[in-house]
Amino acid sequence: MSRSRMKLGAFLMAGGHHIAAWRHPDAYAQAGSDIDHFIALAQIAERGKFDMIFIEDAAAIRERDPELASQAARSTAFEPLSLLAAIAVNTSHVGLVATASTSYTEPYGLARSFAALDQLSGGRAGWNLVTSASELEAENFAASGLRSHSQRYERAEEFADAALALWDGVEDGAYLLSNGEAFADRSRLHPVHRHGKHFSVDGILESPRSPQGRPIMVQAGASDVGKDLAARTADVVFTASQTKAEAQAYYADVRARLGKYGRGHGDLKVMPGISPIIGATEEEAKAKYRALQDLIPDAVGVALLASYLSIEDLSAYPLDGPLPEMPPTNLIQSRQQLIIDLGKREGLSIRELARHFAGARGHWQVVGTPIQIADAMEERFADGAADGFNVMAPLFPSGLEDFVTLVVPELQRRGIFREEYEGTTLRTNLGVAQPGKS
Amino acid sequence: MSRSRMKLGAFLMAGGHHIAAWRHPDAYAQAGSDIDHFIALAQIAERGKFDMIFIEDAAAIRERDPELASQAARSTAFEPLSLLAAIAVNTSHVGLVATASTSYTEPYGLARSFAALDQLSGGRAGWNLVTSASELEAENFAASGLRSHSQRYERAEEFADAALALWDGVEDGAYLLSNGEAFADRSRLHPVHRHGKHFSVDGILESPRSPQGRPIMVQAGASDVGKDLAARTADVVFTASQTKAEAQAYYADVRARLGKYGRGHGDLKVMPGISPIIGATEEEAKAKYRALQDLIPDAVGVALLASYLSIEDLSAYPLDGPLPEMPPTNLIQSRQQLIIDLGKREGLSIRELARHFAGARGHWQVVGTPIQIADAMEERFADGAADGFNVMAPLFPSGLEDFVTLVVPELQRRGIFREEYEGTTLRTNLGVAQPGKS
Repeated sequence: MSRSRMKLGAFLMAGGHHIAAWRHPDAYAQAGSDIDHFIALAQIAERGKFDMIFIEDAAAIRERDPELASQAARSTAFEPLSLLAAIAVNTSHVGLVATASTSYTEPYGLARSFAALDQLSGGRAGWNLVTSASELEAENFAASGLRSHSQRYERAEEFADAALALWDGVEDGAYLLSNGEAFADRSRLHPVHRHGKHFSVDGILESPRSPQGRPIMVQAGASDVGKDLAARTADVVFTASQTKAEAQAYYADVRARLGKYGRGHGDLKVMPGISPIIGATEEEAKAKYRALQDLIPDAVGVALLASYLSIEDLSAYPLDGPLPEMPPTNLIQSRQQLIIDLGKREGLSIRELARHFAGARGHWQVVGTPIQIADAMEERFADGAADGFNVMAPLFPSGLEDFVTLVVPELQRRGIFREEYEGTTLRTNLGVAQPGKS
Repeated sequence: MSRSRMKLGAFLMAGGHHIAAWRHPDAYAQAGSDIDHFIALAQIAERGKFDMIFIEDAAAIRERDPELASQAARSTAFEPLSLLAAIAVNTSHVGLVATASTSYTEPYGLARSFAALDQLSGGRAGWNLVTSASELEAENFAASGLRSHSQRYERAEEFADAALALWDGVEDGAYLLSNGEAFADRSRLHPVHRHGKHFSVDGILESPRSPQGRPIMVQAGASDVGKDLAARTADVVFTASQTKAEAQAYYADVRARLGKYGRGHGDLKVMPGISPIIGATEEEAKAKYRALQDLIPDAVGVALLASYLSIEDLSAYPLDGPLPEMPPTNLIQSRQQLIIDLGKREGLSIRELARHFAGARGHWQVVGTPIQIADAMEERFADGAADGFNVMAPLFPSGLEDFVTLVVPELQRRGIFREEYEGTTLRTNLGVAQPGKS
C-alpha cells in the first residue's frame, strides 16, 4: 500500500529553483523577504496534498566573487526554523522540513528548536541534517577553517545520536499538563548522559513528547559515510540523480544498507529532486525552458559548475572543450563525480555542462506536458528509482501552482498519489513508524 | 514627550508568573504546549497597546531536584525565537522580545535568527541578551562546566559587538530586490571581520536591513559589568526592584553610565518588573493573592529562595529564623544582595522571605484595585524610578486580560500611556533612535 503511493515534497526557495529565476520577467522580486509569499507557497503545497515543504539552508552568503554574487545570489531573509514556525501556524497538514547544520550548532540547542517546531505544528517537523561543506559558512563561525569531510561526518554522527536521545528522553505523558499535585512524572523522563568527542550533554528537554514521537530525519548525503548515516538514522533521503539508472543504483545502494542497522525497506523513503517545467504542449514547455536558460550568463553558469566541482576556477580551459582531469574533492564528492560522469558519457563541453547544471542546479530536469511529467515520475517510481520526489519548481509561485493544478490531479487519477492526507502528522502521512509506539 | 508616556512590556509565561500558578483552579494546564494560547496572549497585549511582549528562556529544565521539579517547574515546549516567529504572523504592532544566551550559541547564527524574526515581523524584534547563570544549562552544552561571571560577560561583550556589526553590515538597499541585472549593491554591503578571543566572524548576513535598522537590544544584568554592558549596548533594561528607593538608585546608576559611551538619557528605557494582582476592591485583590500564596508548598518556596541566593540548601536553618550569613555568589550577585537586604531591613524569617519571593519571583508585587495599581505605577514613573514596566501577570490569560481591561484605560485617562501605536516597528514605539538613519 505505501509502495503504491508516491510521496511528494515541495522544495521552496525565494524566487525559484532556476538559477536565473530572479531575472525572469515573472519573478517576484521581493520574494526572499516576504513572509506572506512563503506562507502562500506552503498553502499551495498543502492544497496539492504534498507530504512536506522543504527549506534548504546555508549560514552565509552563497558566492564569494562580488560580481557573481550580484548575479547568482538567492537572498532570503529567513533562517529556516523561524520561517517554518511562521508557516506552521498558517497550515494544518503539510510537513515542515528545515535544513540545519551539525557543524555550527550544539545538539541540545538544535534538538530544542526542532521540538518547538514539532510541538507548535502538531507533529509536522522534519530536520534535514547537513554538515555544511561551504567555506563561506566556516568563515562565519570558526577561525580554524572548514573541517574535512570525515571530521564533519564524525561530528554529525555524534550530533544526531545526541538529538535523538534528547527527543526520546521524554515519554508520552512525562509532563502531566494538569492542575494536579505533580507537574512531571519523573519515571517517564530519562535524562541523557552523553560525553563524546565533540559534545557533552547531561540533561533533558523541557518539552512534551511530540505528537509524532520526534521530528522526521531527512538527509541528502551521498558519500559512503553519508549514505550509512542516512541508512542508520534517516526517515527520508533527498538525492540528485540525472538518469534513471543512476537513481536506481542510488536507491538500491541506500536500501541495501538498512539491514545492518536493523531497519526495513519501508523505514526509509528515497525522494530524488525533480525540476519540472510544465506547458500545455511540449512546445510551450520547451519555450518556457529556453526563456529561463537564456537568462543565464556564461560566467555565472561556469562559476556555478566550478563550485559544484569544488575547484577554484574553470576559466583557464576552453569553454567549448571538455572538463580537465581533477583530484577528488574534500567537499561534496558525490556531486563532483556526477558531473564528471555526465560530461564523459554524453561528451559535453564545459559550456554545455554549465548550462545543463546551472538551470536545475544538478537535479533531474523534465520539460513537457502534465502527462509527460506524470509519465516520467511514474516510470521512476515504478522502476525502483524513487519512493517519491522533491519537486523543485523553476519559478515561484507559478511553477508550484502549475504542478498542483495540472500534475497532481494526473498522479491522483493514476492512483499513485493521495487524494486526502492520511493524518495530521508528517510521520503518519509519510507512513513511517513512530518511535516509542508498539 | 517620550518622558511623559510610560512604556509597557507584557512578560508572557505559560501558566502565569506566580510560582504556583499552574496549581490554581483557573490555570490552563496545557498552556505551555499550546501555541494558540500564546498567540491569544500576544493579541491581548496588542489590544492593550503594549510596546512589547517579552519571553524568558533557559535551555534546560529549571530545577535539579526531582521532587521540586515536579512541583515548581514551568514547562514550555517553545524555544523563544520559534514561538515569536509564530506570533509575529498573527500580530501587527506589538514588539517581540526573545531571551537568548551568549554562552551556548555563536554570533552569526543568533544574529541571523534575530534578523529573520525582525524581517518577518516587519521590524518588531528585540533580543534580551543573557549570559546563562544556570548550571543545568551548562551541563547541556559543555563538559567544562559553568563559566565564571567575568568570563561569561567577557564573552557576552564580544558576542554583542559581533552581532551589532553583522546587522549594521547591511545597509538599506544593499539587496536590491528587483528583476534587474544585479542582485546586490556591493557598495552597501560591509563584510564583518572580527577575530576575537571567543569568536571569529568573517562574513555578511544574507538578509535585507530590518525596517527598524536592527533588533532592539534588551538586558537585565544588574551587576557592575552587566550595567556597563547595558549602558553601552542596550535600548531597554529590564530590572527587579522591590522598593521605590531601590528602583530609583538603579535608574540613576544605569543612566549615569550612558555618558561614557556617548549616549543620552533617552537612548535607554529602564523597565522594572511589576506583578499586579487586580481586584474590583482591595479586599478582592488581597483574597486573590492569598489564594495563590496558599498554593505554594514551603519546600518549594524555600528551595526557590535557596536557588535565588545561589546556595545549595537552606533546610539546615530554622524556617522561622533569619537567613544565615553567606559569601557572594559566582552566579547572579544582584539578586542575592536584594534578598539579603530585604531580610535585614524588614526582619523577615526564611519562611516569610520564601513566600515573598516565591510569589512574584523577586519582583515588585502590587495588590489592589486598578486605581491603586495605576497610582503605584505612576508614582515610580514620575519619581525617576522607571521609564515603564514589564508587566508580569500572576495567571494567564486572566491576569493580563484584567490589566488590559482595567489598568490600561486608567493609565490612558491620566495621559501617561499611549492611546494608539506611534508606528509599526518596536523602535518607533519605544521612541529610540534608529541606527544608520540621520
